[in-house]
Amino acid sequence: MCLTCPGIEKTIENSSRPVQIAPGLAVGGADVVLMAGPCAVESYEQTRAIAEALHQLGIRVIRGGAFKPRTSPDSFQGLGLDGLKILRAVADEFGLTVITEALGVRHVELVAEYADVIQIGSRNMQHYPLLWEVGQADKPVVLKRGFMSTVSEWLSAAEHISRRGNDEIILCERGIRTFEPSTRNTLDTNAIALVKQTSPYPVIGDPSHATGHADLVIPAARAAVAAGADGLLVEVHPEPRAALSDADQALPLEALPELHKQIGRIAAALGRSLV
Amino acid sequence: MCLTCPGIEKTIENSSRPVQIAPGLAVGGADVVLMAGPCAVESYEQTRAIAEALHQLGIRVIRGGAFKPRTSPDSFQGLGLDGLKILRAVADEFGLTVITEALGVRHVELVAEYADVIQIGSRNMQHYPLLWEVGQADKPVVLKRGFMSTVSEWLSAAEHISRRGNDEIILCERGIRTFEPSTRNTLDTNAIALVKQTSPYPVIGDPSHATGHADLVIPAARAAVAAGADGLLVEVHPEPRAALSDADQALPLEALPELHKQIGRIAAALGRSLV
Amino acid sequence: MCLTCPGIEKTIENSSRPVQIAPGLAVGGADVVLMAGPCAVESYEQTRAIAEALHQLGIRVIRGGAFKPRTSPDSFQGLGLDGLKILRAVADEFGLTVITEALGVRHVELVAEYADVIQIGSRNMQHYPLLWEVGQADKPVVLKRGFMSTVSEWLSAAEHISRRGNDEIILCERGIRTFEPSTRNTLDTNAIALVKQTSPYPVIGDPSHATGHADLVIPAARAAVAAGADGLLVEVHPEPRAALSDADQALPLEALPELHKQIGRIAAALGRSLV
Amino acid sequence: MCLTCPGIEKTIENSSRPVQIAPGLAVGGADVVLMAGPCAVESYEQTRAIAEALHQLGIRVIRGGAFKPRTSPDSFQGLGLDGLKILRAVADEFGLTVITEALGVRHVELVAEYADVIQIGSRNMQHYPLLWEVGQADKPVVLKRGFMSTVSEWLSAAEHISRRGNDEIILCERGIRTFEPSTRNTLDTNAIALVKQTSPYPVIGDPSHATGHADLVIPAARAAVAAGADGLLVEVHPEPRAALSDADQALPLEALPELHKQIGRIAAALGRSLV
Repeated sequence: MCLTCPGIEKTIENSSRPVQIAPGLAVGGADVVLMAGPCAVESYEQTRAIAEALHQLGIRVIRGGAFKPRTSPDSFQGLGLDGLKILRAVADEFGLTVITEALGVRHVELVAEYADVIQIGSRNMQHYPLLWEVGQADKPVVLKRGFMSTVSEWLSAAEHISRRGNDEIILCERGIRTFEPSTRNTLDTNAIALVKQTSPYPVIGDPSHATGHADLVIPAARAAVAAGADGLLVEVHPEPRAALSDADQALPLEALPELHKQIGRIAAALGRSLV
Repeated sequence: MCLTCPGIEKTIENSSRPVQIAPGLAVGGADVVLMAGPCAVESYEQTRAIAEALHQLGIRVIRGGAFKPRTSPDSFQGLGLDGLKILRAVADEFGLTVITEALGVRHVELVAEYADVIQIGSRNMQHYPLLWEVGQADKPVVLKRGFMSTVSEWLSAAEHISRRGNDEIILCERGIRTFEPSTRNTLDTNAIALVKQTSPYPVIGDPSHATGHADLVIPAARAAVAAGADGLLVEVHPEPRAALSDADQALPLEALPELHKQIGRIAAALGRSLV
Repeated sequence: MCLTCPGIEKTIENSSRPVQIAPGLAVGGADVVLMAGPCAVESYEQTRAIAEALHQLGIRVIRGGAFKPRTSPDSFQGLGLDGLKILRAVADEFGLTVITEALGVRHVELVAEYADVIQIGSRNMQHYPLLWEVGQADKPVVLKRGFMSTVSEWLSAAEHISRRGNDEIILCERGIRTFEPSTRNTLDTNAIALVKQTSPYPVIGDPSHATGHADLVIPAARAAVAAGADGLLVEVHPEPRAALSDADQALPLEALPELHKQIGRIAAALGRSLV
Repeated sequence: MCLTCPGIEKTIENSSRPVQIAPGLAVGGADVVLMAGPCAVESYEQTRAIAEALHQLGIRVIRGGAFKPRTSPDSFQGLGLDGLKILRAVADEFGLTVITEALGVRHVELVAEYADVIQIGSRNMQHYPLLWEVGQADKPVVLKRGFMSTVSEWLSAAEHISRRGNDEIILCERGIRTFEPSTRNTLDTNAIALVKQTSPYPVIGDPSHATGHADLVIPAARAAVAAGADGLLVEVHPEPRAALSDADQALPLEALPELHKQIGRIAAALGRSLV
């Protein structure tokens, strides 16, 4: 911590260098980058409605799952390739950047073809063959923290990627598993602050998985950014109750302007801009 | 969450009523209340130096331990009654409000005589005889969350107090015990947001115990206030390395202005004032 | 671990010395000591029925709560002094040793008057004034592990007692709080083995609180003894469904012979006797 | 729990059907099956020495890692195909059954060619592409519990395998991550008892990873079998201090007879035989 630094420019203690995810768009620099979208891509209509809402607010990154890792084999597993095509189409229409998950080694090439940023999910943080595969890909990687992985293991997982040649890594804190049952996970804002100070990578927060409740998403998003997060990954849905996955935690689209306004104020308080 | 509320005044989702801790000073209203002081009262000089620094920044509440619960019987156990007298004397000199811990039922009367607010420590959150005793005291109570307690158990503990007649309760989130070893505890900002929305009591955050590292105290304080905390309880020390307890987490006095400035900005972003 | 020891007598790795709890009855020696009884003393009839069943099987220690620490202030808080009197009366009738909890410092003297062994509950493991009080009592103490306390903190708590002069301490592993929701707690058999090897005190297991389900009590009891426990503290009830507290985990009295038989076989496999 | 069952044959509460892993060798029946071997196959000499020791005690299954999942990219990652060949060669010499881990989807075919039983490691319990792949393999699968996974998630992971056609699943409890730092993990004996009663699959225990300390392996092995485990997976090494991975937890080969003797006694106490 730079206790003696005079200006607000140094408020965020920062050891990382920015990761460029699109022309003129970097994570880990002066901007706080808001990324939002559905848990799962369900249809063209659903995804386009969301993309349009993002575009209207000036949000530049859309997230969405085409391949879904689901605890139960009975749950909706995603649209697969069709989902990727939908994401790309609506993103291109509105000039958005796409981030989506590669579930296994065999998906990496395909995902890299349609997406701008490859996400490694929390359950896969220590699946080394997948880390090695994206370590050879030519796209930035969002590495979600395992929900029961230590910060040290998280940074080691990043090293498994960087050793294969890919340094464009963005860490994502998405809540850890604790004894507390009233929220789905516990957002570890300490970890956000710690990796900001000690790791070479930018870090973003996922207030949706970290809380599991739409009502807590905005306060958790504020806390993540206040702790130093360089961006947010938020699940939104036009009709949360009808969502095919993670219905409880999806922020309704009409709450997005409020999220945007509040996060903008927190970012400004830290001398940063929200994009 | 009030998603449709138009003004910033409603940013903080709030189900609680303020608790008056001194004339003109309430926790849980429009103000964010900064409370700071040494982990343990070590001497008149140490405590006066801190009180003076608080006063210069306009901070109105001093915290400090006279009776210290220590894991090891070999650790410094506090100055006891002498510590209470020192706290009262320096507080009176600078017009400060005093908060300090009552370690057991036999201390409650004594602590109530010298302090303005009685603190129940984390290890004692489920020590019912002590809850019943402060339930009959005529002072506001800060109820720290057990580091191993669920939100539901925390609110039940508050009910043990209120049933005996004392409703002047302030909850304090001070970090929970998780699997993560790189920080002393994990600050549960989700819990702050949740009790703000669902409980009748204000809630404050303790970024010192929640992190265990001075370098993380300011980001954690920002996160707690951003999540909705009505105040902060921060450990400071004129010479952290010489502190008799919790040396690693004590913020040096010279960092207090930076903390004050940053928290003031976060509070303002939420439409609140820092006092 | 004594890998080279030839005889079965040395199977249990042991660093402790026995604690005498009644004439001819020690915990921590060659015998495994079964202690059973109701969660809460509810009536003379209920307690006497249990005592009689214990006596018939040759079980020599009765447990039962007179003062109950309850998460909710609305739950049954125990019969208090009347409960102690009932326990003493039925114990004397059947020649049993009594173990019961002292909830706070003000109960210690009273509990010591009626009971043979004073129990410190899990929530109170770090309530130091209580530890100091039983440290001056003239009775053996069962120190339950805090459900979220490390082994190191547990041993430090024991030291808070022994420093005041009372070395007659029996540790009790009763399950720790983890992320697993399907059982009430997680029985930490590792901890039993560890304190057996490294601490100066005997250790017993509580399979009732450690599981929270009557169906798991017998397997958990077997595991605790196999890990090296010197005894067991088991909740039984004549009519579990009608129990005023912890109904789910109470073993029905008619299952006690099966528990007794199975634990006897495990003890014998380790070269020990069950009493 | 079968409280009324008269004979010792019913001591182990059992909802599962046995899984045949070699001619005349089943896991989940009357026998407790001991499986042992090195964490990692390091050389032909090391592996043969272990195989010979197993053979002398009548142990029929050898475990050993050829592909090693390692937290740090700097750690020894295994001998790969050479390791598989060594395992097969020494197993054939001594008539042993081989169990080894498939680290990713691309290893499954290869591992199935050399091994008799395919292991899914703890970090991969929710890596669905791998579960689907072994779900189509023609070999029994040992599914280790994720160290961060609930029993419910573990059983769902098994369902991901069985849905693809492979029902020959053996669950393996290998310790969960908790707040306790003095052991590497916490052996969850409750979970062993629970899945024995409620799942269709046999369950074995891994006392090596569950404890992380050689001194605790034997007591933990006893506890696992006493809780109802149908077998054990134990790491042994001729020279633990020189082991290339997990040196602290490897049982020295000369302690294997003591383990064998003690587990044999516990198994017998439950009416089972050790093979």
